[in-house]
Amino acid sequence: MPLQDHMQLISVDDHLIEPPNVWTDRLPKKFLDQGPRIIEKDMNAEIGSNVLIESGRQSGSGGKAARLSEVWQYEGRIYANIGLNAVAGKKPQEYGTDPTRYSDMLPGCYDVHARVKDMDIDGVQAALCFPSFPRFAGTAFLEGKDKELALLSVKAWNDFHLDEWCGSYPDRFIPIIILPLWDPAEAAKEIYRCAGKGAKGITFPENTVGLGLPSFYTDHWDAVFRAAEETNLPLCMHFGSSGKPPITSPEAPMAVMISLFGTNSMDATADLLFSQVFYKFPNLKVALSEGGIGWMPYLLERIDLTWEKHRWYQNVNKEVRPSDLFREHMYGCFIDDLEGIARRHKVGIDNIMWECDYPHSDSNWPNSRQYTAKMLQDVPDDEAHKIVELNARKLYNFPRSS
Amino acid sequence: MPLQDHMQLISVDDHLIEPPNVWTDRLPKKFLDQGPRIIEKDMNAEIGSNVLIESGRQSGSGGKAARLSEVWQYEGRIYANIGLNAVAGKKPQEYGTDPTRYSDMLPGCYDVHARVKDMDIDGVQAALCFPSFPRFAGTAFLEGKDKELALLSVKAWNDFHLDEWCGSYPDRFIPIIILPLWDPAEAAKEIYRCAGKGAKGITFPENTVGLGLPSFYTDHWDAVFRAAEETNLPLCMHFGSSGKPPITSPEAPMAVMISLFGTNSMDATADLLFSQVFYKFPNLKVALSEGGIGWMPYLLERIDLTWEKHRWYQNVNKEVRPSDLFREHMYGCFIDDLEGIARRHKVGIDNIMWECDYPHSDSNWPNSRQYTAKMLQDVPDDEAHKIVELNARKLYNFPRSS
Repeated sequence: MPLQDHMQLISVDDHLIEPPNVWTDRLPKKFLDQGPRIIEKDMNAEIGSNVLIESGRQSGSGGKAARLSEVWQYEGRIYANIGLNAVAGKKPQEYGTDPTRYSDMLPGCYDVHARVKDMDIDGVQAALCFPSFPRFAGTAFLEGKDKELALLSVKAWNDFHLDEWCGSYPDRFIPIIILPLWDPAEAAKEIYRCAGKGAKGITFPENTVGLGLPSFYTDHWDAVFRAAEETNLPLCMHFGSSGKPPITSPEAPMAVMISLFGTNSMDATADLLFSQVFYKFPNLKVALSEGGIGWMPYLLERIDLTWEKHRWYQNVNKEVRPSDLFREHMYGCFIDDLEGIARRHKVGIDNIMWECDYPHSDSNWPNSRQYTAKMLQDVPDDEAHKIVELNARKLYNFPRSS
Repeated sequence: MPLQDHMQLISVDDHLIEPPNVWTDRLPKKFLDQGPRIIEKDMNAEIGSNVLIESGRQSGSGGKAARLSEVWQYEGRIYANIGLNAVAGKKPQEYGTDPTRYSDMLPGCYDVHARVKDMDIDGVQAALCFPSFPRFAGTAFLEGKDKELALLSVKAWNDFHLDEWCGSYPDRFIPIIILPLWDPAEAAKEIYRCAGKGAKGITFPENTVGLGLPSFYTDHWDAVFRAAEETNLPLCMHFGSSGKPPITSPEAPMAVMISLFGTNSMDATADLLFSQVFYKFPNLKVALSEGGIGWMPYLLERIDLTWEKHRWYQNVNKEVRPSDLFREHMYGCFIDDLEGIARRHKVGIDNIMWECDYPHSDSNWPNSRQYTAKMLQDVPDDEAHKIVELNARKLYNFPRSS
């Protein structure tokens, strides 16, 4: 019998929709106009330029013409994704149109008290929530022209998340932070600052090249990775955070991109295992958020075979088999993945964590607990417990509630 | 006991290196200078511009300075890849440097009589050989400025392949053809012409968008797909044929790209299953050459889940579950894939074919038969027979030799 009553569901991938006050409550007065704030706009007349950037998903217009959307404005740029994929509670037939006003969403999207109630309905004990408007790894602030404002905006999200969102229910949320990605030294300082305030993880891009930043193969990120290692904060690399969604052709329906998002996590796996990152930072841990797990046995076999044949003449570490490196450092995360569960021993029973993905379309809310129990029906108790709860508690150093 | 003596290995992915006479023997005299021909060149002094185009692999310099390379010249452009990955017979420690002269390669790379001997050594009964200089799907001829010459060059490769290479040993080679991809009507004519000469398959790009051509979601390719369907010729979509190899960063070692090449085949799978191609052409078949199979159970599950939730509001066929469509139309091909073999029933036991990949680095030549016997050791006889021989004979309508 999997998923016994004493096993708590810990989700390592959910999403919060920032309420309007995140920045207006925290930025100095001189930045209130240029900092992120909610405005009303007729998005039928003008489509924001970054709507497609993170997920390739186009924000729907929501209404018939005159209805205004609530959108983020930051340094004059419009970010029209307040309700990006915030479809919890809707029928699949309605998924095509993202909500464009707070009032179109379940309050659990943006209100932490309502969120906890939605988690209770869903049978979820604790959740790790990624940003929405700043994108999964806070990359929106890379676009900031005023870097003083951008840094303060990053800190404001972190303070909101640590103090207000997670701080309201410390045993229900795993706090993560975003970084000022344009300045690794400043990013390292922010890691130490937030670790002191109780942060348990860092959301970091799965690939930095598409963001115009140096790759994992350079020493550019050493200060960040060292700070993460020293503070014992895992990096959460959410698929899509590279800003390079898998879009195969201009006419491909969104279903293609949704189906292929795991390939972003495959790219990150190969990069990390063939780079020097885990050799330089032997205690660094990486979770592949929302990446799925069913592909891992295949890719690890393929990477090992490639390493066997091709490591000799390349700048690749020759000592440790990549699949061994994976099990030391990396974690697969899944919502819905029967193939991965069937092959869990090929992934590593200590390397798998469960995800809810509220309020996105991949989520099974409000039936996550029943759904997950069914997925795990052939899994022995001790393994199910690791997958849904214990691995996450250990990786994120997140104490079990009484 | 898998791989009994009566089971013949049919490889659906090998590569031939074009001998120097393919075009000089066949093009009209007026085109001999501009058509593809071998010249000698000091590639240490000048690196050809297309060296990286197909696989991201850089052709090694081969020698210490003064030694000249043999390269293809076509309309003045240099294609320095005569020995692209032609490493059969070398140790992995030597893989870093591709051969740059015919004399550096095993004769089996370019001489069909020597090839048959190498297949005998390897225990391989029959092979399907992709082009090298024209690239896996003949896309080099898209670059031809003179389209009369380009078309004649395509036909010359096909005639060489059908008449000289496969024609010398009709029971040892499955003949495939390349197409004039810039002109679908002309391509359809070439399919009918070559089907009449005994062609058994068509090599076609896994994605046409990166080549500057319309996608599978348009009706641009209808004449080609209709001709393929009417002649019962499967499309062989070799990974890398899209011209978009999975290069994650400028500094990534080649091992990363080699490990990730299967993601190209994943992209093609999602494109084909979510496009209208198999609805418009219900008898069309596609083989994902060298794409591997271990990822298929994961991706098919993910595609089905996406279809369940997201088909309602998109231009996606709502009638047939994508995994059912896959089993009707698509074939996975593997060289080395224990995960795929373990999960073969999730792929479809009738949808898997074996590959040798001579003379590339993924090949296990000269030990393919022993190696494959070991891979299949836990597979029942009837299933092993389908995988190594019968599925390929059926798909390619390739008669069993006496």
